[in-house]
Amino acid sequence: MIRRPFDPEAHELDASFRLTKFTDLKGCGCKVPQDVLLKLLEGLQGEGAQATSPIAQVAQIAQISQDQEQSHFQYVTAVPRIGIGMDSCVTPLRHGGLSLVQTTDFIYPLVDDPYMMGKIACANVLSDLYALGVMECDNMLMLLGVSNKMTDKERDVIVPLMMRGFKDAAEEGGSSVNGGQTVMNPWLTIGGVATTVCQPNEYIMPDNAVVGDVLVLTKPLGTQVAVNAFQWLDQPERWNRIKLVVSEDDVRKAYQRAMFSMSRLNKTAARLMHKYNAHGATDVTGFGLLGHASNLAKVQKNEVSFVIHNLPIIAKMASVGKACGNMFKLMQGHSEETSGGLLIALPREQAAAFCKDIEKQEGYQAWIIGIVEKGNRTARIIDKPRVIEVPAKDKDGELW
Amino acid sequence: MIRRPFDPEAHELDASFRLTKFTDLKGCGCKVPQDVLLKLLEGLQGEGAQATSPIAQVAQIAQISQDQEQSHFQYVTAVPRIGIGMDSCVTPLRHGGLSLVQTTDFIYPLVDDPYMMGKIACANVLSDLYALGVMECDNMLMLLGVSNKMTDKERDVIVPLMMRGFKDAAEEGGSSVNGGQTVMNPWLTIGGVATTVCQPNEYIMPDNAVVGDVLVLTKPLGTQVAVNAFQWLDQPERWNRIKLVVSEDDVRKAYQRAMFSMSRLNKTAARLMHKYNAHGATDVTGFGLLGHASNLAKVQKNEVSFVIHNLPIIAKMASVGKACGNMFKLMQGHSEETSGGLLIALPREQAAAFCKDIEKQEGYQAWIIGIVEKGNRTARIIDKPRVIEVPAKDKDGELW
Repeated sequence: MIRRPFDPEAHELDASFRLTKFTDLKGCGCKVPQDVLLKLLEGLQGEGAQATSPIAQVAQIAQISQDQEQSHFQYVTAVPRIGIGMDSCVTPLRHGGLSLVQTTDFIYPLVDDPYMMGKIACANVLSDLYALGVMECDNMLMLLGVSNKMTDKERDVIVPLMMRGFKDAAEEGGSSVNGGQTVMNPWLTIGGVATTVCQPNEYIMPDNAVVGDVLVLTKPLGTQVAVNAFQWLDQPERWNRIKLVVSEDDVRKAYQRAMFSMSRLNKTAARLMHKYNAHGATDVTGFGLLGHASNLAKVQKNEVSFVIHNLPIIAKMASVGKACGNMFKLMQGHSEETSGGLLIALPREQAAAFCKDIEKQEGYQAWIIGIVEKGNRTARIIDKPRVIEVPAKDKDGELW
Repeated sequence: MIRRPFDPEAHELDASFRLTKFTDLKGCGCKVPQDVLLKLLEGLQGEGAQATSPIAQVAQIAQISQDQEQSHFQYVTAVPRIGIGMDSCVTPLRHGGLSLVQTTDFIYPLVDDPYMMGKIACANVLSDLYALGVMECDNMLMLLGVSNKMTDKERDVIVPLMMRGFKDAAEEGGSSVNGGQTVMNPWLTIGGVATTVCQPNEYIMPDNAVVGDVLVLTKPLGTQVAVNAFQWLDQPERWNRIKLVVSEDDVRKAYQRAMFSMSRLNKTAARLMHKYNAHGATDVTGFGLLGHASNLAKVQKNEVSFVIHNLPIIAKMASVGKACGNMFKLMQGHSEETSGGLLIALPREQAAAFCKDIEKQEGYQAWIIGIVEKGNRTARIIDKPRVIEVPAKDKDGELW
C-alpha cells in the first residue's frame, strides 16, 4: 500500500530534485486578496448582465472566498441560467433539457512525486463535479504550465509522468483527456477543465439541507499540514518545532496518506449521494473545512446552520498542527486542503448507511461530523471538537 | 474608427506602463520544441488508448506544429471518437447524436491596451470553434494569470479592463463567461475555454477540399510584424532598421489595424461557411499562413495540394517585413499571427459570392488567395506572390 518515494536518481536527475521547488507559492504573499478579487470581478458584472438572483450572488461570493486561500478560485460571473453549483457552473443548453456542467482548476506542486501530482490535479478538478453529484465527466482538458526553470532533462522526465498521472485519474473517473494546452511558465502549474453534459436528474443542487440532517465528510483533513511537515524534514529549524510531537516516520507516513487521499476520486461519494438522497454537498479545498461548510450553509434555501463536532484528521497531524501554534488553524477548520473530501448534508436516517456503503465499496471510511440545526445559514465548529485519528491504528507496512 | 491609445496616466499609472512588459515571451527562447512536445505527448498515448486513425494522427501533429511557434498548442491526445477538428476537439456525448466541441488557448500580452487584449484573447479562443463552422459557443471560461510583478494599482486598473474586453467579445459572439480561474503568475496570461454542444450539421469537417476549390482568407496577415514594429518606436536601434521604409504614423496605424483585426470575431465567416458549402477551414495563428495551410492540406481526404498566389497584408507591413530580412518570414508565410483569419477551401463558383457576402455583412474584405489542385497534401506559396496592401488606400482618420 505504501508508495515508494519518487526517486530522482532513478530517472537520472540530481538527488536534490524536488518538484515543489518550481513555485514560489508556498508562502502567502502571492494571493489575490478577497476584497481585490471582488472588485476585479465587478468588471464582469456589466450592464448587459441579467439581474443576479440572491442565491447566485451568495454562491459567487462563497466560491470566491472558498478558494482565494489557494490563490485560485472559480468566479461564477454571469448569471447561471439554471441553478448554480458552488463548485461548478451549470449552463442550460439549446438542446432539450440538457445542461452543461463545467469546472476548471489549477494547482501548484505540493508533492514531489510527479505522477501523483498529476493524479491529484485531475482528482481536484473532478471533485467539483462530484460535489454536485455528477458522476460522468464527458471530457477533460489538461492545462499544463511547464516551468522554464526546469532543465531539459527535468522537463523530459517530469512532464510525461505528470501527464500520465492526470490521464490515469481521468480514466479512473471514466473520462478521457481530449485536449488541452501546454505553456511555458516560470512556475509549474497543472490543472484542467472537466465538462459534462447532463440531464437535470444527474446533478444534485447543494441548497436543500433541512433541520435534522447530518453532515458527512468523505476524506480526512490535514493534507496541508502533512505536506508541509514532510518538507520540514529537510529544514532543521522548522523540524525542531515539531519533532517533540512526531517522529520522522510519522511524518513520512502522513505525507503518503495525504498524497494518496488527495489523489483519490470522490466519485463513489457522488454516486452514493443519489442513492442516499443527499440534500447538497461541497468539496473541501482551499478555504478549509469551516470555510466550505460556511459557504454551503450560506446558499441553503432553508433557515439552517451547520454545527461540526468531529474532526477526522490524518494520524498525528492534529498534534503537529497544535505544535505549530497559529500557523495552520487546523482545529479551527481553516487549514487549506487540496482535493479534499465531499462534505455532504444527508438525511439523518441515511447517513450511517451512506458511510457503511462507501466503506464497503471503496475500503475507506467516511465520518458523520456534524448536524444541521435551525439557524441563520452559518457554520461553526464546537469548542472542543473530537479529533478522530485516521487511521485509528497504525499497521506496519500499510497506510490505512 | 481609430481607437485612442490606452493612456496609463488617465488611470493614474506611470506613463511608462506597458502591458507587454509582463512576459519574457517576446523572444524565442521559451518555446517547447516540437520534437520535445511530441515526446511528452507520448505519455498520454497509453496502452488504454484506442488505435488512432491516420487522420487523427495527422491532425494531432498538425495541431501541434500549428501552435508551437506561440509556445502554446492544443494537443489532441486521446482518440477523437467522432471526427476531429484540427482546432478543436470533438467528443461524442451520451445524449443522442450530440457532440461536445471544445477548445482552449492562452496568450501573453502583445498589445498594450488591456481592454483590447481581453477582446483579442477571447476572439482567439472562439476562432478555433469558428474554423469548424461552429457558430454557437454555449459557454466560455476565462483563464487569467495575473502577474505578481504588477503593483496593486496596476492590477486593479488592468485586470478589470482585460476581463471586460474578454466578456464583451464573448457576448459579441453570443456567448457568456460563466466561470474560470484566476491565478497569480510571474507572467501575465489570458485565455479561455470555449465549449459548445452541437448536432452534426452544426460543424463542418475540415477534410473535404477537392481539386478546383479556391482558398479564401478572411483577415489580412502581418499582425506580428505590426505589433513588433510598434514596440520598436521606443527602441532606436530597432527603429533605425525600418525607418527608411515606414513612418511612425504608418506603424501606429498598422498597430491599430492589427489590434482591431485580432479582436474581430470570425463568426460571420463561420456562418457563411455553411451558406457557401465550405469544404474545410482552419484559423491562421502561431504557425503562420503557410504552416496552417500545410496542416489543413495534410488532413485532406482527397489527393490535393494548396497553392497560394496572393498575400493580403496590413498596409506597409510587407515592406517592414522585408526590411527586417529573415526575422519574420512574412512573405514566406511563416510569420506568426494571433487571432488571424479563417483559411477556407470553397467551391470555386461560391468563393466570390462568399467574399462579397462577408464584405456586405461585416464591412471587411476577404480575399481569394489560392487554389486547390491535384497533389500530395502539401501547401506552398508561389515564388513571387502578389502582395495585397490592406487597405489599398489610406483614408485620413479611418483605419480601413
